[in-house]
Amino acid sequence: MRAITLPSHGDADVLTAADVEDAVAGPGEVLVEVVATAVNRADIMQRRGFYPPPPGASPYPGLECSGRIAALGEGVTGWSVGDEVCALLSGGGYAELVAVPVGQLLPVPAGVSIIEAAALPEVVCTVWSNVFQLAALQTGEVLLVHGGTSGIGTMAIQLATRHGARVLCTVGSPEKAVRAEALGAERAIRYRDEDFVKAVRTATGGRGADVALDNMGASYLARNVQALAVGGRLVVIGLQGGVKGELDLGALLAKRASVHATSLRARPAAEKAAIVAAVLAGVWPAIEAGEVRPIVDRILPLSAAAEAHRVMEGSTHIGKILLAVS
Amino acid sequence: MRAITLPSHGDADVLTAADVEDAVAGPGEVLVEVVATAVNRADIMQRRGFYPPPPGASPYPGLECSGRIAALGEGVTGWSVGDEVCALLSGGGYAELVAVPVGQLLPVPAGVSIIEAAALPEVVCTVWSNVFQLAALQTGEVLLVHGGTSGIGTMAIQLATRHGARVLCTVGSPEKAVRAEALGAERAIRYRDEDFVKAVRTATGGRGADVALDNMGASYLARNVQALAVGGRLVVIGLQGGVKGELDLGALLAKRASVHATSLRARPAAEKAAIVAAVLAGVWPAIEAGEVRPIVDRILPLSAAAEAHRVMEGSTHIGKILLAVS
Repeated sequence: MRAITLPSHGDADVLTAADVEDAVAGPGEVLVEVVATAVNRADIMQRRGFYPPPPGASPYPGLECSGRIAALGEGVTGWSVGDEVCALLSGGGYAELVAVPVGQLLPVPAGVSIIEAAALPEVVCTVWSNVFQLAALQTGEVLLVHGGTSGIGTMAIQLATRHGARVLCTVGSPEKAVRAEALGAERAIRYRDEDFVKAVRTATGGRGADVALDNMGASYLARNVQALAVGGRLVVIGLQGGVKGELDLGALLAKRASVHATSLRARPAAEKAAIVAAVLAGVWPAIEAGEVRPIVDRILPLSAAAEAHRVMEGSTHIGKILLAVS
Repeated sequence: MRAITLPSHGDADVLTAADVEDAVAGPGEVLVEVVATAVNRADIMQRRGFYPPPPGASPYPGLECSGRIAALGEGVTGWSVGDEVCALLSGGGYAELVAVPVGQLLPVPAGVSIIEAAALPEVVCTVWSNVFQLAALQTGEVLLVHGGTSGIGTMAIQLATRHGARVLCTVGSPEKAVRAEALGAERAIRYRDEDFVKAVRTATGGRGADVALDNMGASYLARNVQALAVGGRLVVIGLQGGVKGELDLGALLAKRASVHATSLRARPAAEKAAIVAAVLAGVWPAIEAGEVRPIVDRILPLSAAAEAHRVMEGSTHIGKILLAVS
C-alpha cells in the first residue's frame, strides 16, 4: 500500500510517500480502506521526533480517518465489508489501508460526506471526553477555549453552545474571530491584542471561566489559573507553549480549582472504545440533525502531506486540514 | 464570654484570653456552649496574619468544636437545647459560646466522649470531601497521605483502609511510623531518610499512587506528580511548603493525571452542609461501630492555647490537639 512514512525526523520535507507492506486486521480489528485522513498537531510532533507512536501502533502518522471496511479481523461482529466508517486511530491514517480496533469505529453520520467524516473522530472524541466527561461542563457555565478556530476549537464551540454553556475563546486574527463567533462563541478574544484573563473577567462580571480547554500548556498555565472561576477546571490537551510552568497553588486553593492534563492517543483500547460509544450516543445524533458539523479548512491529496503540515504550522487555517487518500 | 483573641499577629504569645461579647445565634444558626475545640494549622496561619477569617465569620480562631446546644436561632428545627453536638465552624471555636449554621452540626457519635468529639469535624469532613468525593478513591487503589500522623493523616489512613484502599504515608520519625502503621497504613515512609517517590514506586511495583493527599504544596508538587499513577489525582489541602511550584505538564499529561487544591473554610454554607450530611451518612456509622476513631494527642485547657500552638508548630504530636473549654 501507499503510505506517508518518516524515514527521519525534522521539518515537513521528511514526510515521504512510499510503498509499504499492507496493513492487516488482527483479532478484534477491521481493515479500513482509507478515503481521507486529517492532520493533527500530534502528527507534527511525531514528525519532529517528540511524540513516538505508542507500543503496537502503526509507525506512520495519522490519528483519524474515514473510509470503507475492506476486511474483518477474527471475532469482529456488527460491521460488514463495505460499511462507510470513520475511526479514531493510534497512528497509520496517512496510508491506503489501516487496521482499527473495532471499538474505535463510528459510522459516517447521515448528511456528512465520507471525506468530511475524516474531520470528526479526533475532535469529537477529544472535546467530548475532556469538556463533558472529565470537566463535566454544565448548562449555564462558561467554557474558555484556546484556539477557537482550530479543529478542536470549532467543535468545542459548537458542542458547548448546544449544551447551553457560554463559550469564550481566543483567536489569532480578526478573520478567525468572525468565524468563531459565527459558530456560537459569545466572544472571541484576540490574544495578540488583549489580555485574555482580563477579557474573560470582563465577559463574566469578574467570575471567570468554569472550564478552560487549553492547547498551550506551560506558557498559559499561570494565566489560565487566573482566568478560572471558583470551582474551575483547567484541562490541558496540548503543550505548544512548553511543558514546565509555574503553578500558583495558593490561587488554585482559593478557587478550589483543578488542573488536568490528558491525551487520547496513549489510552488503552477499552477507554477509547468507551469514549467512542459515548460520542456515538451523545454527539452523532446532533451531527445527523445538522446542529453540529465538521469545519474543514481545505482538502489536499495525501501526496501533499508536507504542504498540509506547513499550513498547520503557519496557523492561518480554520478548522480541519484533510488529506484525501483515494 | 471568655475567648482567645488575636489583638495582634505573630507567634503563639499573641493569643490572648479576654472577656468578649457573647456569641448570638442568627437565623438558621444554633448557639453552642463549647466543651472543647481543636487546634488546626489554619489557626496558626490566622494567628500569623496570613489567613484572615472569611466575611461574616467570628474573628476568634477555632474551626471545630464540641458542646451542648444553648439556644436555637430563628427557623431552626430538628435540634433541641441541651443536645450534645460537634460542629464544623468558620471560626470562633476558641470561646465559651459559638454560633453555628445548623447544617454544620453533627451529633456526638455514640461511644465517643463529648470532649473527643471536638477532634472529628474538620478531619472527617476534610478527608471525606477530598479523598472520597473529589478524588473518588476506589477500593483497591493506592492512597498516599503526607503527614500520616497529623489529625488529617490519622483519619485518612483509617477511612481509606476501611474503604479497601491501600494506604502509604509519609512521617517524620520512627515513632510516628509505628503509629501510622498501627492505624492501617501499609507503609509509613520516613521522609527525612528516604525519597518518598522511590518508596511509593517500590511499594506499588512502579505503578504509583492513585490519589495523593498533600499538605505541603509547592515544595512537594514536582515529587507528588512523579509519585502519581496513570489517572492519578493529587489533592493539595495545605501549603506548608510554599505556594508557587513548578508543574511538569508533560508528566501530568503522560499520566492523564490532575492537581486539585481545596479548602473547607471558605466554602458557602450550603456546600459545607452537603459535606456534613454526607459525613453523617458515610462515616458516623463507622465511628459508632468503633471501626474508626478520633486520635487525640493531648487535651489542654483553653487558657493554654499558646502552648497548644507551640506543640503543633513543633510537629511532634500524633493526632489532634484539643482545648477543653468548660
